[in-house]
Amino acid sequence: MAAPSREACETMERSIRDRVPPLLTDLYQFTMAYAYWRAARHNEPAVFELFFRDNPFDGGFSLFSGLHDCLLFVRTFRLTHEDVEYLRSVLPPATDPAFFTFLRGLDCSGVTIRSVPEGTVVFARVPLIEVAGPLAVVQLLETSLLCLVNYASLVCTNAARFRLAAGPRRKLLEMGLRRAQGPDGGLTASRYTHIGGFDLTSNVQAGFLFGIPVAGTMAHSFVTSFSSLEEVWPQTLVAAKGGSDPVDLISLTKGWLGRVCKLLGAEHGKIREGELAAFLAYAIAYPHNFLPVIDSYSVSCSGLLNFCAVALALFELGYCPLGVRLDSGDLCRQSVDVRNAFKLCGEQFSISDFPSLTIVGTNNISEQTMIELNKKENEIDVVGVGTHLVTCTRQPSLGCVYKLVEVRGSPRMKFSEDTEKSTVPGRKSVYRLLDTEGHPFLDLLCLAEEPVPKAGVTMSCFPLGRDDTRQSVTPAQVTCLRKDVFIKGQITHPLCSAAETREKVQSSLQNLNPRHKRLQEPDSYTVAVSENLHNLIMAIRGGSCNNSINFLLAN
Amino acid sequence: MAAPSREACETMERSIRDRVPPLLTDLYQFTMAYAYWRAARHNEPAVFELFFRDNPFDGGFSLFSGLHDCLLFVRTFRLTHEDVEYLRSVLPPATDPAFFTFLRGLDCSGVTIRSVPEGTVVFARVPLIEVAGPLAVVQLLETSLLCLVNYASLVCTNAARFRLAAGPRRKLLEMGLRRAQGPDGGLTASRYTHIGGFDLTSNVQAGFLFGIPVAGTMAHSFVTSFSSLEEVWPQTLVAAKGGSDPVDLISLTKGWLGRVCKLLGAEHGKIREGELAAFLAYAIAYPHNFLPVIDSYSVSCSGLLNFCAVALALFELGYCPLGVRLDSGDLCRQSVDVRNAFKLCGEQFSISDFPSLTIVGTNNISEQTMIELNKKENEIDVVGVGTHLVTCTRQPSLGCVYKLVEVRGSPRMKFSEDTEKSTVPGRKSVYRLLDTEGHPFLDLLCLAEEPVPKAGVTMSCFPLGRDDTRQSVTPAQVTCLRKDVFIKGQITHPLCSAAETREKVQSSLQNLNPRHKRLQEPDSYTVAVSENLHNLIMAIRGGSCNNSINFLLAN
Repeated sequence: MAAPSREACETMERSIRDRVPPLLTDLYQFTMAYAYWRAARHNEPAVFELFFRDNPFDGGFSLFSGLHDCLLFVRTFRLTHEDVEYLRSVLPPATDPAFFTFLRGLDCSGVTIRSVPEGTVVFARVPLIEVAGPLAVVQLLETSLLCLVNYASLVCTNAARFRLAAGPRRKLLEMGLRRAQGPDGGLTASRYTHIGGFDLTSNVQAGFLFGIPVAGTMAHSFVTSFSSLEEVWPQTLVAAKGGSDPVDLISLTKGWLGRVCKLLGAEHGKIREGELAAFLAYAIAYPHNFLPVIDSYSVSCSGLLNFCAVALALFELGYCPLGVRLDSGDLCRQSVDVRNAFKLCGEQFSISDFPSLTIVGTNNISEQTMIELNKKENEIDVVGVGTHLVTCTRQPSLGCVYKLVEVRGSPRMKFSEDTEKSTVPGRKSVYRLLDTEGHPFLDLLCLAEEPVPKAGVTMSCFPLGRDDTRQSVTPAQVTCLRKDVFIKGQITHPLCSAAETREKVQSSLQNLNPRHKRLQEPDSYTVAVSENLHNLIMAIRGGSCNNSINFLLAN
Repeated sequence: MAAPSREACETMERSIRDRVPPLLTDLYQFTMAYAYWRAARHNEPAVFELFFRDNPFDGGFSLFSGLHDCLLFVRTFRLTHEDVEYLRSVLPPATDPAFFTFLRGLDCSGVTIRSVPEGTVVFARVPLIEVAGPLAVVQLLETSLLCLVNYASLVCTNAARFRLAAGPRRKLLEMGLRRAQGPDGGLTASRYTHIGGFDLTSNVQAGFLFGIPVAGTMAHSFVTSFSSLEEVWPQTLVAAKGGSDPVDLISLTKGWLGRVCKLLGAEHGKIREGELAAFLAYAIAYPHNFLPVIDSYSVSCSGLLNFCAVALALFELGYCPLGVRLDSGDLCRQSVDVRNAFKLCGEQFSISDFPSLTIVGTNNISEQTMIELNKKENEIDVVGVGTHLVTCTRQPSLGCVYKLVEVRGSPRMKFSEDTEKSTVPGRKSVYRLLDTEGHPFLDLLCLAEEPVPKAGVTMSCFPLGRDDTRQSVTPAQVTCLRKDVFIKGQITHPLCSAAETREKVQSSLQNLNPRHKRLQEPDSYTVAVSENLHNLIMAIRGGSCNNSINFLLAN
């Protein structure tokens, strides 16, 4: 798929504006903005970093997503008159009215964003996005950027894990909208699970907005809404090649049903007439796209037989049905039974396409089920995943944070008794070090002014979370992980379509060493700081007390 | 809070239209709609029911929510030209063009909805919403209604459980937007956690749209953005009563800081100047609303001392600071230490309001943490909850379903090898039976045409999920659980504000027997079908085979 058209971009931008208005943020962003403004610090140059502290799902990697939405958000960030009036009503009455005039004029024309490209494999503690600009503005963006990255990256990572579990061949369908956390939970899930490796979505709006291929046929309610063959209308179908008179599809199918029952040794008595009626009505509406759900009553006693009969009638008229959907019970066992029936029909009635019809399986699939699926004999071609995919049941939040690292050129650091929660100060460059096989093995955070690490040259660094232990590394290749994506209010690179980012995900995963890519008990990837950055951290930690003494004694 | 104004309703309606466009649904709704239309069945009167199969969080009850949004959605349901053109592009080329004209004219003027009132305590298997109308239209509404009810009810139930765990006295603040599943996951969470029992939200847009009280003061970044007292500007504050000259707040606070350190036996050397600067700047901006976060460096060595000093200076000038926020570490222990310091300051400096200042605790609070909090000594007045509340980590989806129960006056039923997944056929009335103490003890599903069960009269019923065992019950009171809320395209009751529904939740919970309300290992509540409905189920189960034989032999 090509880059999205101008029109598609405008629709997406409108969608982001509708879904992420500037007031969709925490109140404290505005209370802080006022305090900065009141202290005349609102325009001081500041730098924030966005990162997460742990890979989700006990995994060895994550996929960075949500940048596209962040960029559309910052480009259009502007408070309306109504927004500002609402803020006036909730901030204390003593708030200086000039502050509201200031808010009304705010935009992101002074903001610069450097980011890891969307769809890249990333690791915990690496600053993914750097947002630089006037202190009050970059502070105000916090909640919105976190909200846009957190879930997008989480669900994209989840999808990529499902894809790894499923293997490259099986088609994956996302169908979680009804179980999503709010309407946009569904829309965001559809976009980012596609990017993470799903092929199709059931979500029509996601198809409309993002160009993702949509899929879907029928629910059980369609089947149970029919009770007799009298409800089938029209009852005829013209052969695929045309020309001849319309054929009575009911009679034709009834003939096939008798033969199918005989072939498969099935009892007539358990076949549901309503189900056959539903399949016929559907086949007449969609002779080229016949794929019914066959477990509304009983797969083996009714659904499979009805399907084979209608499918054989369609084949006779020159159409090729698509296949069946299984939505309950033991999907593996049933898929094998269904495939065997398809093969028998194909052989018996000499229809070469019958054995390879598609079998779709959809029944509360989790990553674990998907892994188990691969260990068992099964004939499932397409897997539909809903709840476990979109709500990320195993870990429903990623925990991204947005931390201040520099103000007026001077590094800032948050301490914490829990050292994991301390931040890494200063504006940085982030390099990815590759080994001789081309696999990334270490992400290195350096001070922005440091020279780029050289391939083939050994250097010292300090892995984060390993108690200041020095490590020597010699990269075979070095890449700069982030690039400028938004400069002074302008998006500097064309936005990628969902399909393009989806390719980026697969190629980024391709490069990842299998030991980090393992779904269970992966080796942890090293993220380290340079010697200079390590020295800065030590200096800030150690030097802090002296400053404090000074200010108290200086009075 | 009164019923929402006309203007607020319009804003909410626009918000629903933006967030839940008609294409935000599964494709199969449209493929089925075409098959119904093609078979000329689209206008057949049909009835669907919405329910869930298990109470979430291993609980004994749920809270029904999302109806308000459903009603706004159905009232404005209409496909645009662009929507229909998109559908034309994804449905098979052979689709009859007249179908798209039909879609363009669709609305919910033929739809009637009967529902449990929003905010009512409900139980698994009870049909919460009944949607009746033309088959194609009521089918098309499925995904949107599920999406609007599923998460709203889940997160409202989660909030109600947090409220039960916290007890009625403690204030609860929702602050989960940044960790929510997509922007609307945050907005929906803010609305429905307020309804479930939270007092405040950090989400400004939720305040703007729904009138929920908003709260928030400062992040750690505000504190770490300051490094020295030179950044405090202006440095003066006029006394609360006015009149006198501006006072140098820095000098005043430094004086208090010396006395506080002495009183609390603290070392000067560990106090952070930047933190004090941040507190001073904030106090100058918000002298009436001073509530800083005090754990950016160390609560006991810096944050608490700086707070007490600024607070004492504010008290001296006639202001009353609000309190502090703790965001890391052992909240209980720290809150006790903080309260003790407040008491000491209050006594030593004769400030009667000091001991009762507010202590806010916010640090990855779960239902379990909340329960444990109540068992330990602590002094936390307000608890802020984010991730665990909004993403419902313990069970991130509810699993509502929408099932066809009647077409053209004739009952429909979906069978399943898993009997739990079989549906209860027919259009129903739902009664709640109360015992002599006024507690609900059984929800009874009857056929619509059955007479209302009488108080004091013993009757037979069949509890669902208990293998057709008959039970005799004698209600002391009987209430009809559902009422008409939408008739032929019109909302028939004024929509409730979030605050009104919030009251409904508390009164509905009040009536619930404590044995069902227990958060852990509650007694399960009985949902039963009437004898007549039970007979219908048996008849459909038993009678089905005969029909099938007929249709095959009749050819």
